[in-house]
Amino acid sequence: MTIAGKSIIAGMPIHGSAGVFRSYNPAKGEYLEPEFSQATEADVDAAAWAAQSSFDAYRSTTPAIRAAFLESIAVRIEAIREEIVARATEETGLTAARIDGEISRTAGQLRLFASELLLGEHQGIRIEHGDPDRMPVPRPDLRLRMIPVGPVAIFGASNFPLAFSVAGGDTASAFAAGCPVVVKAHSSHAGTAELVGQQIAAAIADAGLPTGTFSLIFGAGRVVGQALAAHPAIKAIAFTGSQGGGTSLMATAASRTEPIPVYAEMSSINPVIWCQGGATTHTEDRVNAFVASLTLGSGQFCTNPGMLFIPDSESSLIEKIGSAIESSVGQTMLSAGIKEAFDSGVAGLHELGLQAIAVGQLGETLNAPAPTVFAATAQDFLANPQLQEEVFGSAALVITYDNTADLIACLDTLQGQLTATVHFTESDSPIVSEILTILETKAGRVIANGWPTGVEVSHAMVHGGPYPATSDTRTTSVGSLAIHRFQRPVAYQGFPEALLPEPVQESNPLDLPRRVDGVLER
Amino acid sequence: MTIAGKSIIAGMPIHGSAGVFRSYNPAKGEYLEPEFSQATEADVDAAAWAAQSSFDAYRSTTPAIRAAFLESIAVRIEAIREEIVARATEETGLTAARIDGEISRTAGQLRLFASELLLGEHQGIRIEHGDPDRMPVPRPDLRLRMIPVGPVAIFGASNFPLAFSVAGGDTASAFAAGCPVVVKAHSSHAGTAELVGQQIAAAIADAGLPTGTFSLIFGAGRVVGQALAAHPAIKAIAFTGSQGGGTSLMATAASRTEPIPVYAEMSSINPVIWCQGGATTHTEDRVNAFVASLTLGSGQFCTNPGMLFIPDSESSLIEKIGSAIESSVGQTMLSAGIKEAFDSGVAGLHELGLQAIAVGQLGETLNAPAPTVFAATAQDFLANPQLQEEVFGSAALVITYDNTADLIACLDTLQGQLTATVHFTESDSPIVSEILTILETKAGRVIANGWPTGVEVSHAMVHGGPYPATSDTRTTSVGSLAIHRFQRPVAYQGFPEALLPEPVQESNPLDLPRRVDGVLER
Repeated sequence: MTIAGKSIIAGMPIHGSAGVFRSYNPAKGEYLEPEFSQATEADVDAAAWAAQSSFDAYRSTTPAIRAAFLESIAVRIEAIREEIVARATEETGLTAARIDGEISRTAGQLRLFASELLLGEHQGIRIEHGDPDRMPVPRPDLRLRMIPVGPVAIFGASNFPLAFSVAGGDTASAFAAGCPVVVKAHSSHAGTAELVGQQIAAAIADAGLPTGTFSLIFGAGRVVGQALAAHPAIKAIAFTGSQGGGTSLMATAASRTEPIPVYAEMSSINPVIWCQGGATTHTEDRVNAFVASLTLGSGQFCTNPGMLFIPDSESSLIEKIGSAIESSVGQTMLSAGIKEAFDSGVAGLHELGLQAIAVGQLGETLNAPAPTVFAATAQDFLANPQLQEEVFGSAALVITYDNTADLIACLDTLQGQLTATVHFTESDSPIVSEILTILETKAGRVIANGWPTGVEVSHAMVHGGPYPATSDTRTTSVGSLAIHRFQRPVAYQGFPEALLPEPVQESNPLDLPRRVDGVLER
Repeated sequence: MTIAGKSIIAGMPIHGSAGVFRSYNPAKGEYLEPEFSQATEADVDAAAWAAQSSFDAYRSTTPAIRAAFLESIAVRIEAIREEIVARATEETGLTAARIDGEISRTAGQLRLFASELLLGEHQGIRIEHGDPDRMPVPRPDLRLRMIPVGPVAIFGASNFPLAFSVAGGDTASAFAAGCPVVVKAHSSHAGTAELVGQQIAAAIADAGLPTGTFSLIFGAGRVVGQALAAHPAIKAIAFTGSQGGGTSLMATAASRTEPIPVYAEMSSINPVIWCQGGATTHTEDRVNAFVASLTLGSGQFCTNPGMLFIPDSESSLIEKIGSAIESSVGQTMLSAGIKEAFDSGVAGLHELGLQAIAVGQLGETLNAPAPTVFAATAQDFLANPQLQEEVFGSAALVITYDNTADLIACLDTLQGQLTATVHFTESDSPIVSEILTILETKAGRVIANGWPTGVEVSHAMVHGGPYPATSDTRTTSVGSLAIHRFQRPVAYQGFPEALLPEPVQESNPLDLPRRVDGVLER
């Protein structure tokens, strides 16, 4: 494939006239070819209306057709795996192994939604038969199904150039729901974005789906993104990135003539709590695993463990963690901007008077800052709400707590999180029960004796959580439940079978699971 | 029961020191005893924190206990049926038969959620077993369930003093989900609100549930309501009322430190479309049914049919509708303020140059304005977006369309609606198919050859729809699906059986329906 440096609007490569930008190799400090032309607001308008024009035809495809479409995107992405790895590693500083794994994950996500479509539970069919003899008034025949909300605007994440970008989880779930998608590409991996976008456009052409089902828009800065979020044809927004970016989209969505839902996955420090038993067993493995999880991919995961609670009595652990950190080596971050934000976050913790218990080594490449771990007490934590602000990258805070009451006071003040983790042994069970009751109200996923990095893509995953982890705690952005973000219920009252949409027809031609007169049919 | 004129905060009658107000009999123009004391912001604060303090104990009750609690509220309300009818008819101007029916509906809603709790589908259980041998990394054990979001603030509707007020659908679904509730009573039926609130408080005491599970706050004006919506302990808002009131709560919720979901059911004109066959069969019955649906309960239903599309060729229908309207008689509206708003809405339609095709008769009681129907053409409709503004009460617009293209142009511009209705015969099928595709994107419920008033409370009902019908099109406020508004998903990773919450334990002690390794278990 050739990277043309152009937006893809309803299947056509479009040269935008709003200036140019180039991707940047953060490890080498070099700008990459080719130039990318930036879309104008008119281009955004064209993409959004094309999505709207395609909506009825696309949403009326059968689940089997949409499943085949998702599968064909997966196959096409896998077919250019080497090309994607070559480009994405240059654009992101991530390793070839990581990008390779992420391609597999991306294909896996598309296939998960394909299988979900074939199962059909997401259509939420409920049928209630009428009763003309009911007193005092007849009971009407009612049939409920979930339908797609309409065109979705998706903002790719910088830290997952495949799995949460152009053909990532948001796109896969929106396509599965029956929604056309307009992706605003993340400028830091524009070439990767275009390579993947070309595959989606080709899969659409192959399947004979309406071309407006997918568009990919390039533009640095926020103008293009805000225009897309504000566009009347757009009915939902999915975003992964900073709290600033997410809250800005939330404000735009709320101020529209027709407000729309925003699914922004933003900020999380992912606390890990070591209970007494957890802290004192397999200590060396646990310390090493902590540092490995913290520094994995230069700490650039939404589920990076940025906060570790340890019992005061085991404060010798701090030294062990310090040693492990000191021998860790920085890896290139995704961009110079992200590296600067990391440095400034670390500087901010110093300014608050915190002590760095250890600093790792600078990486050999550019933009590869040293992993850094700070120490604080539970009292420090309670006194300083700023300690809850995420420093994106390999930085963590180790917090010592005196007793259970101290720990619980800290957990009670926690902001919303994507994950919360507890390490324990059987002797800790009473305290684990108690803090689990708190943690489940604070996080979308609670983890026992593991690490938050490594998000399984499956039916029972929740990658979500209370604000500010996400803008909408009722959902997940990973796993098959994510499809519900892009659906709304409609009830059909009193229609004859021939006029009903297939999913709610009495004869159940799509063989969907359904609730009939209140009872699950299978 | 004695109406004390006091808020009920965590089971205690509380005299508020922020002034007083009294209910008003809109039919007689008289203020009613007793005086109600208005809550202070400190009272709101106490109620919200009491709800938060009760949250863990209340949400950890079994589904069976919560079901029994809902049932006992129903029984208690039915036990004081006559007292409620006496007070509510005075406060609202609604008939005794209507209030009586609404009590039954309210009890039925509570019982629907009780039965939903016992079925357990709402818990959304998904289990995925781990696989320690999976390559390249082991698969973790993951278990997902829906948990309640936290304390909910509920704003009762003036037009359903029972079914969408203190113990109405919002309260029933929030209680079912496991959320404590703080109700801001609607001041126009304060006595009814207190009678019902006393029953809920008594049911809580009987069941030994934490007293903060329910509070009822009185206060005229918006100060108390806004303080409640802004309170940090409140995690969701449900509201039924005007678009102004709903959007004001949306703005408050969005500007909180932690934004929260708002479920506001606001404004709908509920278009009814007569296709050629529909307009020319059973015409007299249809005309009479239209006027009956329009004037039922003085037109004060969210699903009141405020817009009727008829073919230009059948414009003689206008005369028939006119005759039926002329013989209709106004009924007392809920309050003097609502009657004034009706008059001003009707005046606004006159000012737009529309012609009233018929005006009914003034009622004999106070605040009983004459039903009024206006005529307009499809072209008028397309040229005047103001014609889409709801006039709450017995006012409607009959719109004549020349041809299918005209009709479709009108439907395409429709704002979000709670309902949309089509009347047709078999010969209209092609056009019905075409417009159904439009209507399902505009409304939460589409109705064939019926009337939108009369909302079935059941599993397959959707009482929702795109903005401005509601603030959140992904939900319904009537029917068992409404429970999902107050839940969020949590995943548990790697916990031993003994520490898992019962609903996700492998042994399934609550016998819940669940998806295990992707497959529905029953």
